[in-house]
Amino acid sequence: LEQSRADRIIWILEELNLPYQIQAFKRKSRLAPPEAKQIHPLGKFPMISLNSQTIAESGLIIELLIEQYGSALIPETAEEKMKVRYFNYYAEGSFMTPMVVGVVLNSIRSAPVPFFLKPVVKMIANKVEEGYLMPQYTAHLDFLEGELEGRRWIAGDTFTGADVMMGWPLMAAKARVPGYTREAYPNLFAYLDRLGEREAFKRTRVRVEELEAQIGGKSKL
Amino acid sequence: LEQSRADRIIWILEELNLPYQIQAFKRKSRLAPPEAKQIHPLGKFPMISLNSQTIAESGLIIELLIEQYGSALIPETAEEKMKVRYFNYYAEGSFMTPMVVGVVLNSIRSAPVPFFLKPVVKMIANKVEEGYLMPQYTAHLDFLEGELEGRRWIAGDTFTGADVMMGWPLMAAKARVPGYTREAYPNLFAYLDRLGEREAFKRTRVRVEELEAQIGGKSKL
Repeated sequence: LEQSRADRIIWILEELNLPYQIQAFKRKSRLAPPEAKQIHPLGKFPMISLNSQTIAESGLIIELLIEQYGSALIPETAEEKMKVRYFNYYAEGSFMTPMVVGVVLNSIRSAPVPFFLKPVVKMIANKVEEGYLMPQYTAHLDFLEGELEGRRWIAGDTFTGADVMMGWPLMAAKARVPGYTREAYPNLFAYLDRLGEREAFKRTRVRVEELEAQIGGKSKL
Repeated sequence: LEQSRADRIIWILEELNLPYQIQAFKRKSRLAPPEAKQIHPLGKFPMISLNSQTIAESGLIIELLIEQYGSALIPETAEEKMKVRYFNYYAEGSFMTPMVVGVVLNSIRSAPVPFFLKPVVKMIANKVEEGYLMPQYTAHLDFLEGELEGRRWIAGDTFTGADVMMGWPLMAAKARVPGYTREAYPNLFAYLDRLGEREAFKRTRVRVEELEAQIGGKSKL
């Protein structure tokens, strides 16, 4: 789908230098189109077909690809291995939740309502943003800024699947979260710089931009 | 925390017959209290201290407890093993997301606003519920109803950690999702019945009710 977390799957495939084919779909009212259900009964992307098995859930897809084809992305120490497992869960289970609430909130903000109701809608959206979203964003970003202190990649010395899992939402959040700046979060932004310098990431960005142009979206990378 | 997914951790500990001590905290403005950050820098519950290591993320906690103490909860076939991994990610990464949006939406609905704005707030909340939430709930429940066709537990013949991961939100959703009835979802409700009959689950319910009484919440089990 355009402008989606599925970019991560391209990224891991590029990191592993695996051959792949992409089937792109255009969203319908922001969600995956009905055809998605013909591929997997839940009808949500991304999914991959790997050795004729259909697999969903980004964390699992990335884990399986690395297990089968990516020994260089598996760290040596037990501590780093544990961090990888933690961040694979954390990325979608914790970090993405306020981001999705933010997307829903923006759709409330931009919903077509009579002009005299606009201020009310704005007031309600701002209240949720101040009372719920901002404390969540700040808690997550502060935590991650601390985690990255003196660490090259999110789990330690080795670039792992957890960097792909965390890198995408950390990049996408730049457009969404007020106060998420290089000055306030120097470790996070230096980390994003390192991610952006990877050859596989540069290839991913080009590929995603081609695909977005094809289906009419805008890259978040 | 009261009324929280942390119930799952008690449940898995009961399933594994492990000795444990609970430290209960009361939410502050719906979120974890500031003391939580003294235990883990993110400051979110549940967390466990296992052999003097602090571990967060429910999926990881349950996985680790089973790896170390729960061989009976590990299925034999590769297919079931894969389903367990899938549902461990799916439970928090996919299924919980609309639930959390629903909680935020309810807090919008019940926010204190002048009486003449109440209808506007209600209209906006209903629009999000109809346009975004209901299609999401239905897609997830339909998918799970299909998955459980002819299957005793969520991954297959063996009760696994994925049943704890999925059981809690499927029970909590009963109070939240319109149209989620025994008539519409017979496989899901039969599955919840089977979960409810487990001795470890019954002990969990008693334990959770004691704790809720202590800190002033209401059990979702």
